[in-house]
Amino acid sequence: MRSLPQPAPESLSLAPVLHALGDQVRLELVRRASTAPGASCSELADGLDVPLSTLTNHWRILREAGLIAMSVDGRHRRVQLRADDLHHRFPGLLDPILRLAARE
Amino acid sequence: MRSLPQPAPESLSLAPVLHALGDQVRLELVRRASTAPGASCSELADGLDVPLSTLTNHWRILREAGLIAMSVDGRHRRVQLRADDLHHRFPGLLDPILRLAARE
Repeated sequence: MRSLPQPAPESLSLAPVLHALGDQVRLELVRRASTAPGASCSELADGLDVPLSTLTNHWRILREAGLIAMSVDGRHRRVQLRADDLHHRFPGLLDPILRLAARE
Repeated sequence: MRSLPQPAPESLSLAPVLHALGDQVRLELVRRASTAPGASCSELADGLDVPLSTLTNHWRILREAGLIAMSVDGRHRRVQLRADDLHHRFPGLLDPILRLAARE
């Protein structure tokens, strides 16, 4: 498995993380990723009415902001929420957001 | 004092709130507003190197997302963080964000 580039934990910054979460589709992808570690992009996007090119863009924004790690596994891209890095860099941020996103 | 239009508390939704906070300048304006209730737009933007037209746009995005209330007081526009509405609609969301923004 080859990992796609991602920012180092210490270089994560708050505004880009909030920006990445500030879209209904990306928020839902992150929420799903938080409950399905290592799922593929297509599994996580199942049932969302979003064109593939838009989804690709959403995944890139999430990866570049440091929210997810992505690895290439044959024909699949697998997604991992960077929960530990995020908890370490932004303690107390992610849990309320995931909880509130699940409620909406 | 005349209040500018703003969304009702029950119509606030999470992704637009996070989007509004997902910009370094807007995040700083909200952080400042949280420590200076009723300050004017110009007081809150003091020292930020941002053109006035951009600031006007930032205030609009914050108001339309439901983060701030804005009222016209003679020549000034006064800003109030909608802390109670936000706490009620999104319990546990704002405090960690303000705390982390103060640290950055």
